[in-house]
Amino acid sequence: MIKVGVLGATGYAGIETVRILTGHPDVKITRLVSHSFVGKKISDVYPAFRNVCDIECCALDVDDIAANCDIVFTALPHGASKEVIPAIYAKGVKIVDLSGDFRYDSKEVYEKWYGEPHCAPEILAKSVYGLCEIHRDKIKDATIVGNPGCYTTCSILALYPLLAAGVVKHDNIIIDAKSGVSGAGRTEKLPYSFCECTENSKAYKIATHRHTSEIEQELSHAANDEILLSFTPHLIPQKRGILATSYANLTTDITDEEIYDIFAKFYKDEYFVRVLKPGMLPETKNVAGSNFVEIGFKVDHRLKRVVISSAIDNLFKGAAGQAVQNMNIMMGLDEKAGIDNPGFNL
Amino acid sequence: MIKVGVLGATGYAGIETVRILTGHPDVKITRLVSHSFVGKKISDVYPAFRNVCDIECCALDVDDIAANCDIVFTALPHGASKEVIPAIYAKGVKIVDLSGDFRYDSKEVYEKWYGEPHCAPEILAKSVYGLCEIHRDKIKDATIVGNPGCYTTCSILALYPLLAAGVVKHDNIIIDAKSGVSGAGRTEKLPYSFCECTENSKAYKIATHRHTSEIEQELSHAANDEILLSFTPHLIPQKRGILATSYANLTTDITDEEIYDIFAKFYKDEYFVRVLKPGMLPETKNVAGSNFVEIGFKVDHRLKRVVISSAIDNLFKGAAGQAVQNMNIMMGLDEKAGIDNPGFNL
Amino acid sequence: MIKVGVLGATGYAGIETVRILTGHPDVKITRLVSHSFVGKKISDVYPAFRNVCDIECCALDVDDIAANCDIVFTALPHGASKEVIPAIYAKGVKIVDLSGDFRYDSKEVYEKWYGEPHCAPEILAKSVYGLCEIHRDKIKDATIVGNPGCYTTCSILALYPLLAAGVVKHDNIIIDAKSGVSGAGRTEKLPYSFCECTENSKAYKIATHRHTSEIEQELSHAANDEILLSFTPHLIPQKRGILATSYANLTTDITDEEIYDIFAKFYKDEYFVRVLKPGMLPETKNVAGSNFVEIGFKVDHRLKRVVISSAIDNLFKGAAGQAVQNMNIMMGLDEKAGIDNPGFNL
Amino acid sequence: MIKVGVLGATGYAGIETVRILTGHPDVKITRLVSHSFVGKKISDVYPAFRNVCDIECCALDVDDIAANCDIVFTALPHGASKEVIPAIYAKGVKIVDLSGDFRYDSKEVYEKWYGEPHCAPEILAKSVYGLCEIHRDKIKDATIVGNPGCYTTCSILALYPLLAAGVVKHDNIIIDAKSGVSGAGRTEKLPYSFCECTENSKAYKIATHRHTSEIEQELSHAANDEILLSFTPHLIPQKRGILATSYANLTTDITDEEIYDIFAKFYKDEYFVRVLKPGMLPETKNVAGSNFVEIGFKVDHRLKRVVISSAIDNLFKGAAGQAVQNMNIMMGLDEKAGIDNPGFNL
Repeated sequence: MIKVGVLGATGYAGIETVRILTGHPDVKITRLVSHSFVGKKISDVYPAFRNVCDIECCALDVDDIAANCDIVFTALPHGASKEVIPAIYAKGVKIVDLSGDFRYDSKEVYEKWYGEPHCAPEILAKSVYGLCEIHRDKIKDATIVGNPGCYTTCSILALYPLLAAGVVKHDNIIIDAKSGVSGAGRTEKLPYSFCECTENSKAYKIATHRHTSEIEQELSHAANDEILLSFTPHLIPQKRGILATSYANLTTDITDEEIYDIFAKFYKDEYFVRVLKPGMLPETKNVAGSNFVEIGFKVDHRLKRVVISSAIDNLFKGAAGQAVQNMNIMMGLDEKAGIDNPGFNL
Repeated sequence: MIKVGVLGATGYAGIETVRILTGHPDVKITRLVSHSFVGKKISDVYPAFRNVCDIECCALDVDDIAANCDIVFTALPHGASKEVIPAIYAKGVKIVDLSGDFRYDSKEVYEKWYGEPHCAPEILAKSVYGLCEIHRDKIKDATIVGNPGCYTTCSILALYPLLAAGVVKHDNIIIDAKSGVSGAGRTEKLPYSFCECTENSKAYKIATHRHTSEIEQELSHAANDEILLSFTPHLIPQKRGILATSYANLTTDITDEEIYDIFAKFYKDEYFVRVLKPGMLPETKNVAGSNFVEIGFKVDHRLKRVVISSAIDNLFKGAAGQAVQNMNIMMGLDEKAGIDNPGFNL
Repeated sequence: MIKVGVLGATGYAGIETVRILTGHPDVKITRLVSHSFVGKKISDVYPAFRNVCDIECCALDVDDIAANCDIVFTALPHGASKEVIPAIYAKGVKIVDLSGDFRYDSKEVYEKWYGEPHCAPEILAKSVYGLCEIHRDKIKDATIVGNPGCYTTCSILALYPLLAAGVVKHDNIIIDAKSGVSGAGRTEKLPYSFCECTENSKAYKIATHRHTSEIEQELSHAANDEILLSFTPHLIPQKRGILATSYANLTTDITDEEIYDIFAKFYKDEYFVRVLKPGMLPETKNVAGSNFVEIGFKVDHRLKRVVISSAIDNLFKGAAGQAVQNMNIMMGLDEKAGIDNPGFNL
Repeated sequence: MIKVGVLGATGYAGIETVRILTGHPDVKITRLVSHSFVGKKISDVYPAFRNVCDIECCALDVDDIAANCDIVFTALPHGASKEVIPAIYAKGVKIVDLSGDFRYDSKEVYEKWYGEPHCAPEILAKSVYGLCEIHRDKIKDATIVGNPGCYTTCSILALYPLLAAGVVKHDNIIIDAKSGVSGAGRTEKLPYSFCECTENSKAYKIATHRHTSEIEQELSHAANDEILLSFTPHLIPQKRGILATSYANLTTDITDEEIYDIFAKFYKDEYFVRVLKPGMLPETKNVAGSNFVEIGFKVDHRLKRVVISSAIDNLFKGAAGQAVQNMNIMMGLDEKAGIDNPGFNL
């Protein structure tokens, strides 16, 4: 059994990681670190865990972590991760970091979009971007993985194959993404209260959301060219789920069937990617509580444009599930172990 | 008091029209026509009306309508309207039609997007497109008004001023719109059941939704050029509300303040249009239950693109409220009469 | 026009009062007092009010209130009301207090259930309990009215006629009530966040909720006997609405029709009370956004028990709407003025 | 591996059974029977199953079932089960029936509450009531188990220990239960549409719901006396979850701690029952997607009454999860196999 710790276990991404790990056949949770709930059982913070996981939360102690964990998940706020990780990394413990701190090829891009210096650039340089379907080979050998953002996972997987195949133009790419409220994490802020969120939707951070830079980084790899694009996040009244609608102009006349073939070929070995046949479109409920991604699309011949619709669960494939998928790859386990389920369905 | 009839009174757009009319100071409802509920009180179909409006639904009788109504609202399914309206029109009764049947400048465009011949082209030719903020002068003298679609109202008002001002390019316009479930009307279909809709979102009818043609018609007027654009509707888990996110490339370097000035000037006399200051963005809850439109935007200087966010209530400004606004204009009443309220707020 | 002020205008009950008053034909809002938002427009706090009501919030100044208001609504937290009201009362301004501070016949009962001394017992003694359907005559002459609680309005109206008619026993009365989340007010607390409330329901404050004492006070009047009863509040995932299910043992064999007659007779002049025919039951959506109460019931002959179901909107008839109804009565206006609407319906 | 079939696989209880079985370590699904979807993959009906379970639905063929299934789950509508089961039973296949048809000790009680004759009384006589925590020993040897109703599971487990301990009186027991909408199953009826259910709650079938008789049957066993009680079901706007609030008069002065001890002792070996310490109360989100039951309570000394609050997931412990728990017991597997998870949590 692999010994695992979760730092930031009581945030939403953290507890979702714990939830998945409690059902993982090859893992033993040894440490749950929570600044806010030291000494409390995880099942006192999240009562759904009573009987299933009653581990007590502890404070961060790097030596203790090193002695008891083969790998840790750091589900800390952006900024906090890069303060904590160097000491853990120095002990040789493997790390899957769920924050934005270790996702970038370039320190400069990070610093521009996050507005602060990166204090561990040498670790950043070694970190692998943990989008499993794209970087599996590098993840295998990684000591630290920067687990992708929720919006970014959903967006990159929708556009990467088409850019790699050269069938869409590099300018005028637009991603319009809708997220459930859990994307904001466990927060007491008024705009996330039930009465303010239910029966409401809105765009936010237009043209400035940090995930833009992450998407651009990866799609630039796909296109072998610098991609700059519009990314607009929206808040919609559901708990889980991201739906991204992506627009790109075609370089050539191409049919829905040909687009389907490009996707199907690109993802032919990817268990967790469901490419939908022409005529079908994703729905977030189909991926709620699972590690699956759904991708559908429609060619608009009138405008010589393709519209791609993709859906994930922001907490699962968009955070904790993909983090476990990364762990599975890093530790040489079956990549599907512990995350091979149909989700909530209803 | 103006005598008013509502045809299709028991559908969602119809009953919302009734709801607004019950609070209108200058109106008396004389006939509620409902094919499915002849002989039943409207308050037996919608119990919220008990005591407030207990009128009995009747079958359609054109002579009776002509004798008892100065104006009628036809809230019938697309296709049904154009069968019924000629006889009413012939009697000289004014008409606000909430279907798509009388919204088009061109019979050919209607027939292409609706896939059926138009049986009343001469009435179509006389019908005025009832987007009050754009066509007020023509509406004043109209006998029949084609009340705009919900998506279209939200989309056109967001883009019209910028196209008219010549600050955005004519190609690469994309409208990504999200609608609450009431947009589908009073329906028993499984995909609209609570368990299938809650905690779910999806795109539908990509590149083929009929409202595309209606938006293109009006924006082409604004641009004085043929506008073709992408319009993608989405279903999100709320009852009321449309949020449209529109993308257009700029023709020139322009600041948020300058864009604001264009909107503010264009809508300076429009009570029901709230142009938001830079930094603020619309939320559907701010317009739920009201006739207001909220418009916000953000210039993306990096990409020389503007993103506009607009919000309406699909049943109110997107259907019944605008229909009453049209009636007010047609009948020479105060345009705000009966629809001057802040909506639900909570 | 009656000059009206609202204290605590930016809480949920306060802003609902403002919302209703903006549509009231006989009223002019002269002052909106909000401790937290002094100097901000009400429409900056609640954007749904832009254009409709852009009054600036001010700090409390009793002389200013006295000079500019004929009547004030105090929508302050329990405890705050009784600190502020004596000074206003001393100036001769009429008051509708939405807190629990002025609802009690007995200072002792208040102090027992609220756990603190009452600092204005002489005003309490003069205050009238503002359940309009029961105490209309006293309200007419009142200077200060204690506006009933949301749960209490819904519960008392369901049981009062049966106790007054002597058809139900005085012990073993149970009220099981379910409330939407807006009942908790405008709050940032985690348990009221969207992710914690949606898809969730729970009981709370079993056997200890303060509204118990208010219900007992009024039902004891009805029965002319001391009534003690079980009241259990629940939180359910909707924004507005209270549904109360009340259980009482019958003193006699009685049919549904006879029960109906008791209710129908008791409420025969009450516009805002809808007594449902046997076989029909209330739904909260039928009263959302309106001042109406729905009451249905079923005799369980097997157990010689009657079950009554009643529904209101907690913010409207359960707070702001009834407060305006009280104002109408106190000021000699039409009791229905400004609150005679079918609510949201959809 | 145990070979399992599911009849009625495409209803909500059926598909939840399939969902659980796909993660069960000791089971192989061999047949999915669905009248409505013969020849379609289950993953075409419920896309969440794509890749995880793509079995084709087939028509009912009793010989085929007998040849390929050790046990079947019958998730058919009430009435349909008792038509189909005798033939399967005759073949020696074990059965867990999720309908109401095989839950009763007495054919007469069934016929009275279901209003139709029972066509298989000899099988009914052999059927065991599958409330695992109460009837485990009989379930072990059963060939056919009548899986309990959702409301009944939640209600019986809340009251059984107190009746068995003799601390509550036998009359004046009241159960007020609230259910999510999935309890109505996969239905196209208008009252279950999103727009009619969201922001709405209501009581239904007061004094006449069939589950009343099932609860009375079991609680009469507990009390060793005939128990007749009030049971009121309610529909609330959430997908999953039942919350039952039960009221019973105490026979004796008793503290919260003593009540706790009665529950704790009664359920001391029951993994799936979480008895909450005094001061804590259940929430449906804590049991969503899991087989757990939460039970909390509060003694009302003022009224000498105890109020018990209990929560389950109606589709899981209230249907499919308990069905699998029954299968585990019947087949000699670990009772927790495949159902030992914390549920959705978020």
